[in-house]
Amino acid sequence: MSELALLAGTANPALARRVAAHLDTPLREAVVARYPDGEIEVRIEESVRGQDCFVVQPTCPPVHEHLMELLVIADALRRASAARVTAVLPYFGYARQDRKMGPREPVTAKLVANLLTRAGVQHLLALDLHAGQLTGFFDIPLDHLSARMLLADYFLQKGLSDVVVVSPDIGGVRRAREFAQALRAPLAVIDKRRDRPNQVAEVVHVIGKVYRRTAILVDDIVDTAGTLVRAAETLLRRGVKEVYACCTHAVLSGPAVERIAASPIRELVVTDSIPLPPHKRLDRIRVISVARLVADAIARAHAHSSVSELAHEPLAAELVES
Amino acid sequence: MSELALLAGTANPALARRVAAHLDTPLREAVVARYPDGEIEVRIEESVRGQDCFVVQPTCPPVHEHLMELLVIADALRRASAARVTAVLPYFGYARQDRKMGPREPVTAKLVANLLTRAGVQHLLALDLHAGQLTGFFDIPLDHLSARMLLADYFLQKGLSDVVVVSPDIGGVRRAREFAQALRAPLAVIDKRRDRPNQVAEVVHVIGKVYRRTAILVDDIVDTAGTLVRAAETLLRRGVKEVYACCTHAVLSGPAVERIAASPIRELVVTDSIPLPPHKRLDRIRVISVARLVADAIARAHAHSSVSELAHEPLAAELVES
Amino acid sequence: MSELALLAGTANPALARRVAAHLDTPLREAVVARYPDGEIEVRIEESVRGQDCFVVQPTCPPVHEHLMELLVIADALRRASAARVTAVLPYFGYARQDRKMGPREPVTAKLVANLLTRAGVQHLLALDLHAGQLTGFFDIPLDHLSARMLLADYFLQKGLSDVVVVSPDIGGVRRAREFAQALRAPLAVIDKRRDRPNQVAEVVHVIGKVYRRTAILVDDIVDTAGTLVRAAETLLRRGVKEVYACCTHAVLSGPAVERIAASPIRELVVTDSIPLPPHKRLDRIRVISVARLVADAIARAHAHSSVSELAHEPLAAELVES
Amino acid sequence: MSELALLAGTANPALARRVAAHLDTPLREAVVARYPDGEIEVRIEESVRGQDCFVVQPTCPPVHEHLMELLVIADALRRASAARVTAVLPYFGYARQDRKMGPREPVTAKLVANLLTRAGVQHLLALDLHAGQLTGFFDIPLDHLSARMLLADYFLQKGLSDVVVVSPDIGGVRRAREFAQALRAPLAVIDKRRDRPNQVAEVVHVIGKVYRRTAILVDDIVDTAGTLVRAAETLLRRGVKEVYACCTHAVLSGPAVERIAASPIRELVVTDSIPLPPHKRLDRIRVISVARLVADAIARAHAHSSVSELAHEPLAAELVES
Amino acid sequence: MSELALLAGTANPALARRVAAHLDTPLREAVVARYPDGEIEVRIEESVRGQDCFVVQPTCPPVHEHLMELLVIADALRRASAARVTAVLPYFGYARQDRKMGPREPVTAKLVANLLTRAGVQHLLALDLHAGQLTGFFDIPLDHLSARMLLADYFLQKGLSDVVVVSPDIGGVRRAREFAQALRAPLAVIDKRRDRPNQVAEVVHVIGKVYRRTAILVDDIVDTAGTLVRAAETLLRRGVKEVYACCTHAVLSGPAVERIAASPIRELVVTDSIPLPPHKRLDRIRVISVARLVADAIARAHAHSSVSELAHEPLAAELVES
Amino acid sequence: MSELALLAGTANPALARRVAAHLDTPLREAVVARYPDGEIEVRIEESVRGQDCFVVQPTCPPVHEHLMELLVIADALRRASAARVTAVLPYFGYARQDRKMGPREPVTAKLVANLLTRAGVQHLLALDLHAGQLTGFFDIPLDHLSARMLLADYFLQKGLSDVVVVSPDIGGVRRAREFAQALRAPLAVIDKRRDRPNQVAEVVHVIGKVYRRTAILVDDIVDTAGTLVRAAETLLRRGVKEVYACCTHAVLSGPAVERIAASPIRELVVTDSIPLPPHKRLDRIRVISVARLVADAIARAHAHSSVSELAHEPLAAELVES
Repeated sequence: MSELALLAGTANPALARRVAAHLDTPLREAVVARYPDGEIEVRIEESVRGQDCFVVQPTCPPVHEHLMELLVIADALRRASAARVTAVLPYFGYARQDRKMGPREPVTAKLVANLLTRAGVQHLLALDLHAGQLTGFFDIPLDHLSARMLLADYFLQKGLSDVVVVSPDIGGVRRAREFAQALRAPLAVIDKRRDRPNQVAEVVHVIGKVYRRTAILVDDIVDTAGTLVRAAETLLRRGVKEVYACCTHAVLSGPAVERIAASPIRELVVTDSIPLPPHKRLDRIRVISVARLVADAIARAHAHSSVSELAHEPLAAELVES
Repeated sequence: MSELALLAGTANPALARRVAAHLDTPLREAVVARYPDGEIEVRIEESVRGQDCFVVQPTCPPVHEHLMELLVIADALRRASAARVTAVLPYFGYARQDRKMGPREPVTAKLVANLLTRAGVQHLLALDLHAGQLTGFFDIPLDHLSARMLLADYFLQKGLSDVVVVSPDIGGVRRAREFAQALRAPLAVIDKRRDRPNQVAEVVHVIGKVYRRTAILVDDIVDTAGTLVRAAETLLRRGVKEVYACCTHAVLSGPAVERIAASPIRELVVTDSIPLPPHKRLDRIRVISVARLVADAIARAHAHSSVSELAHEPLAAELVES
Repeated sequence: MSELALLAGTANPALARRVAAHLDTPLREAVVARYPDGEIEVRIEESVRGQDCFVVQPTCPPVHEHLMELLVIADALRRASAARVTAVLPYFGYARQDRKMGPREPVTAKLVANLLTRAGVQHLLALDLHAGQLTGFFDIPLDHLSARMLLADYFLQKGLSDVVVVSPDIGGVRRAREFAQALRAPLAVIDKRRDRPNQVAEVVHVIGKVYRRTAILVDDIVDTAGTLVRAAETLLRRGVKEVYACCTHAVLSGPAVERIAASPIRELVVTDSIPLPPHKRLDRIRVISVARLVADAIARAHAHSSVSELAHEPLAAELVES
Repeated sequence: MSELALLAGTANPALARRVAAHLDTPLREAVVARYPDGEIEVRIEESVRGQDCFVVQPTCPPVHEHLMELLVIADALRRASAARVTAVLPYFGYARQDRKMGPREPVTAKLVANLLTRAGVQHLLALDLHAGQLTGFFDIPLDHLSARMLLADYFLQKGLSDVVVVSPDIGGVRRAREFAQALRAPLAVIDKRRDRPNQVAEVVHVIGKVYRRTAILVDDIVDTAGTLVRAAETLLRRGVKEVYACCTHAVLSGPAVERIAASPIRELVVTDSIPLPPHKRLDRIRVISVARLVADAIARAHAHSSVSELAHEPLAAELVES
Repeated sequence: MSELALLAGTANPALARRVAAHLDTPLREAVVARYPDGEIEVRIEESVRGQDCFVVQPTCPPVHEHLMELLVIADALRRASAARVTAVLPYFGYARQDRKMGPREPVTAKLVANLLTRAGVQHLLALDLHAGQLTGFFDIPLDHLSARMLLADYFLQKGLSDVVVVSPDIGGVRRAREFAQALRAPLAVIDKRRDRPNQVAEVVHVIGKVYRRTAILVDDIVDTAGTLVRAAETLLRRGVKEVYACCTHAVLSGPAVERIAASPIRELVVTDSIPLPPHKRLDRIRVISVARLVADAIARAHAHSSVSELAHEPLAAELVES
Repeated sequence: MSELALLAGTANPALARRVAAHLDTPLREAVVARYPDGEIEVRIEESVRGQDCFVVQPTCPPVHEHLMELLVIADALRRASAARVTAVLPYFGYARQDRKMGPREPVTAKLVANLLTRAGVQHLLALDLHAGQLTGFFDIPLDHLSARMLLADYFLQKGLSDVVVVSPDIGGVRRAREFAQALRAPLAVIDKRRDRPNQVAEVVHVIGKVYRRTAILVDDIVDTAGTLVRAAETLLRRGVKEVYACCTHAVLSGPAVERIAASPIRELVVTDSIPLPPHKRLDRIRVISVARLVADAIARAHAHSSVSELAHEPLAAELVES
């Protein structure tokens, strides 16, 4: 059987190192440098001929830098006669642009899928994709991991009572419901809308019972945190006792960190799918590592054993130290 | 500009004729016969060289017969030097198999998309796809029409009061919410689940307020009608005044018609995207035609004018006579 | 070397089981179910990662059901990281639509080839294809087996004398000649035609000497049996002693079985490439199994040894018990 | 509508000029030169942007030179923004290698089809392809012309009596039968074979009645003329009065011309699909031009009118002057 | 003929506006915005169905932002049924990574070519590509424009005497020689090298006569300006009278502007293929516009007339005002 | 690991045998015959299922024969289930047609790359490609070997003094410079040009110092030898002591051998990438074998070890005996 080669771009070196440690394999050196004009230079130090290559590279912001690094590494590996090139994408940038919403709009998530395949990626490992349908954007094998059980474990250990799981918007109900099921808790949804084209303010409805309960807001991505924070405020106005939040992917762009710091959210639990730089760290943001989950999936994919069985293994939430 | 050629398989000849009438163009004869062993024989009677061909063929049950007809017609048109082959799919079979849900499952909706493209389809016209992400399963242009305004118009004309729009399950919330917005009505959701693996009975939650209201259940597809009928019964038990239902695509397979006949649903409003054979007709099933919507979209696509602007044109619900 | 995984759709489970028995390998469970609306649901029970998968599925009638099953299974195997997907097609539906015969006709056999490849099939095992040129419809490797020696062995053992091999029509002469060569018998051909466009009756010519001989009619497919039965009657009118017939693929659609029962054909020898349901069984239809031939080809393809050498191995005709 | 551009390689300039004359359009200059090392240099003199380009180039011997010229011209036209590139192939080299006959053999006819498409050919015009299945080797539109009616017209005008059409081997029976039907004449077949592996001499059977008749041997290609001449000799030994022969494509390689000169064939009628150089001309080889047929097909394909209707137009056999 | 639609990304809006002015056509609005996390949002304001779309977007730094914008716009146009998508690339980023130089290196210029084609680009307009071979990285039509005559015209008008054209390194000799030919001036080359692996200093050779001449250094790209400035210093040490420089593409990254300001180069002449922001402007950097050249090429490509003839039209160097 | 299978076409059987000897592996029999009409017949004698196949076939003149042989062999191997097909191309015909030089010209080197890939070639081994950018014409892995160190070793062993390496034209400067670096010698360039369109004679400039030195002319290909011989004459007129020449690929077409025989070139050193038939042999043409270099690269590619490291191994120039 061919050798496993673990490589990484520059998007999340800490996660890549954690994955390497779990796999007890060295992280191969792929020199990813930048010329003064910003073009990427890639050079892989050792031969990868006939090897089974896994490239850990979430396409988190700056998304185009990280995506292009991944494409260039894939091109280099393909030309270097790698046996298989697997892109390990703990976070898949552009996942939210997954449909043609208005006239003359792109479907950028599909474009990204096409670019990955064209560059030579032959297999994908992804984590909590924004929509399950993204699995159909590819014809190559895609193993879809979920951090849900890890995050649920964290809350189960906390021993909260009278929990209600809340989706901060209509689009995330299905996801919230799966989380609610893991916690055996009821579900509520927040629905914001403008019913008339010229209506100024959005009307916010809370569908489901939340009064005197402990709410856990659930989403896959926390980006500017606007939706999440407004949802927390709405819930408190409806008599919720306290609000927690939990999202796999901590994009935290723009005013996100300040908003969370000023919000009534007691804890925001995220994973290390995206690195959290020091200036984005808050005491109330807790980071659970997906390194072991990712490492196990890589080991199984390499050994040709079932990756889906991973979902049935007990996983203990492991906090990443700041 | 090249000539428009309108063709149809055998899936929905009545709709094809209505579309032809609206377009004031003859329906071209594509002889679609079957050999005694069931293989399809296609022969297109007149030259289609350099013509802009639209093939009206929903892939409703028997789905494989209708899908294969469409693929064979596309192959014939391509080999006959058609300028462009557009598949007009008022109903897209297999749309619900749009993601890899369990291990070793196919993504059949994507497979179908691949087959259509491989057979020579270069452009698609579709109606109320099960998920918006299906637009990303294709790289060819796809114009996505919606019957929502037609169906909403029907209910607005009815002048019901105290309406609540209800999604019969978690997966359809987004769709129900768009319908609720068209009717300026509030929203509720029904959530059935088993929280423990061995739990016998599903627990049904109604999330949102429905007491003493008139409920309109909304879904894209009514297939065996099980979900819809159980939802109607649940709603009545929760004090709803009366229940209507509305679904674009009337698959109505298995026990569907008997279930609806025996249910407390006052009216089920559907479209003619799928033909309703005599034995499936009930007084309480009302059929609104999408022929004009489809015809307008074809005319615009052929004339290179905007199809998306159709969404802003007033549409009056037109009932199909039984 | 990767593991062999033998799977089957629902087209010919008896043959699949016989092949499994010869290979001494379990038949993997690929759950192929149907939703109430007729859509196929496929789920493969055990991991196939990195395995060498062979799917036994003749695309016999109902052809679209069986073809679509095969495509969906291929899609599932590809997404499940199978090392190689081989479609084992003892009967290839649509093989007779192998050329553009009239204007604006499809070439459906090529379309089917394209669909198989697009769905993820990487290798093919086929048996007695209608035309040798079908091997060129694919760019993937195709191993083409023949049941000719099996069928010839049956007749050699019978010890008939004064045999003449007869092609029931012009299109099958090449095939009949290969069979004649195996039996070291002379050849005759039946040619039906209308020489003038408005001529009512076809004129039937028998080209070659048949008087006082024992005729064996040879074809690859017996479908409605019309050609075969009329050929037998013609031969008897020309003084043939008795008529046998032999065809690899027993489609037997429409009035075929009644026709054969009422015909002067003493024996029709076929194979189990297509299952023969009880209502199609007649005493005078003898079924010879290709299971061992197919199993040997699978074993050799998996072990990377020559499949073509199979043609030189002695094969004894094995009758399938009714 | 875009302009028609007629081009030609060096394979059959006389035919190209005749086609241009019938179309009343200039033959565009595509400079096809050769560097001293034999590499082809192509330069197209005038702009072809947005034009509908037809390249007349049979791939007759030297086949690789002519095929490569065609591929290079197609590449140049594609890069020069031609609207459409049609390869006009009055003779398709390698057509006889249309199936995998033995183990580890190529299917070179399919390879050639793949190369043409890869180089940028988008449409094909072909004449009397060796097997109808070759239409399925392409997914691009292919218009298949036949010289049969032209050749039949020649013999009908001759007023021969007691004609029998003879296929010189088993493989060509279908073709001979179509010709027989055009002449309303009966059919015979010659079957040569060795029934035992070590048998020295082939045994020749004439299947069908030929005694005291005028035989017309029919084939698509006359290559070394061995089969044809031996067939003629056989027929005379069986009491045929006189033998004519007729083949669309006059490859005439190796000893062909001498063999024909020394043979009892009274006349061999061919077309100008392949040029007949002076040293291959014999009085008894008559050449009928397909220029008008090809020109009509080009004109119709360009004007988007039916090419298949050409088959129903009366065509008079036009002899090419030596 | 279909309508021309001119669009632009955000890479060089000034050039796009100049091109639009020359074409006397409005620049279509393609809203290219960025979400807070940096993802691109594209929306094209008016219908482009059936239109001939040209997108002006050099992929200058930040290269990944500009490349991805172009890919997303192409995807949107393709999905919006554009008749043709032409990428107008006055500067092609990554052009210098055009070969595999060391082991396990990518060929990023080819990767970029593949990405463009995969996203839906069907035609390219490029300017002074780093190597002519880049034309072969594409199979779609590519019109390759040159600013050489514009730049040469500038120097011819200056009336310098005793000119020698100098290539600052070995790789650019061919380009310098074409420029020398346009000025009818002799040529020299600078060759820097380390002959032994551990040699500290590079040895610089000037090959050709430069003493007492006026040198014009010629390159396609001026990036960090290191090579150019060192070349100018070397030339002055070898007795050159004065040094000018001329490069089509002004990347000017890192210390480039300071280096030029401190160098003995009297004038650096560039084009507006890349925008020159205010902080990069120096009196001695003169910018000549390629807008008219690009506009003429677009007009000709749209009208299906020859783009290559542009090379023979007189072009007057037009300075862009600061 | 799969077995290595070494095959060869008819282009350079001597080199193939030398490579086989170095690898200590038999040369597999691929029967490559020609039918009387010139069509290629390929049959591979033993099974190659699952084997790692290397086909040694330079595409030297007659280029189309050798290219087509390679394509047909690749097609046969692919259909025969080879695990990998590597084309070993010591000489790549058409490499000089690597860009679109004038309007409406092909890029034949890219066309050839496309044809190879389409026929089933999955990996390439090439030697001294005309331009490094050709590596980017492929997306499959390409190992690019160089004979430079072999040729340099020959001259280093000769112990010449006062050497200057000369590029016979501008296009080859980069190559000459790499050779100069290997010999630690200075560099000169010959530049021929016509500065005015109607100028009769080319003016020849020698750029760099050559007086009283020993010149080694370096090029990749010696074709008609015109450039090389004229360069040698020019150098002698400029006072060079004596002239050697060295080129990897000895095409030697047309008057090449006579020119060299009559020239002042003392020795022309070439490799056996192209066979040198007896009538092209001269005492002053010395042939160094690349067999060992090629064999080592094949062995490493097969064993998945680094091919690029070969560049650092000492290589001794081995003369091929005439």
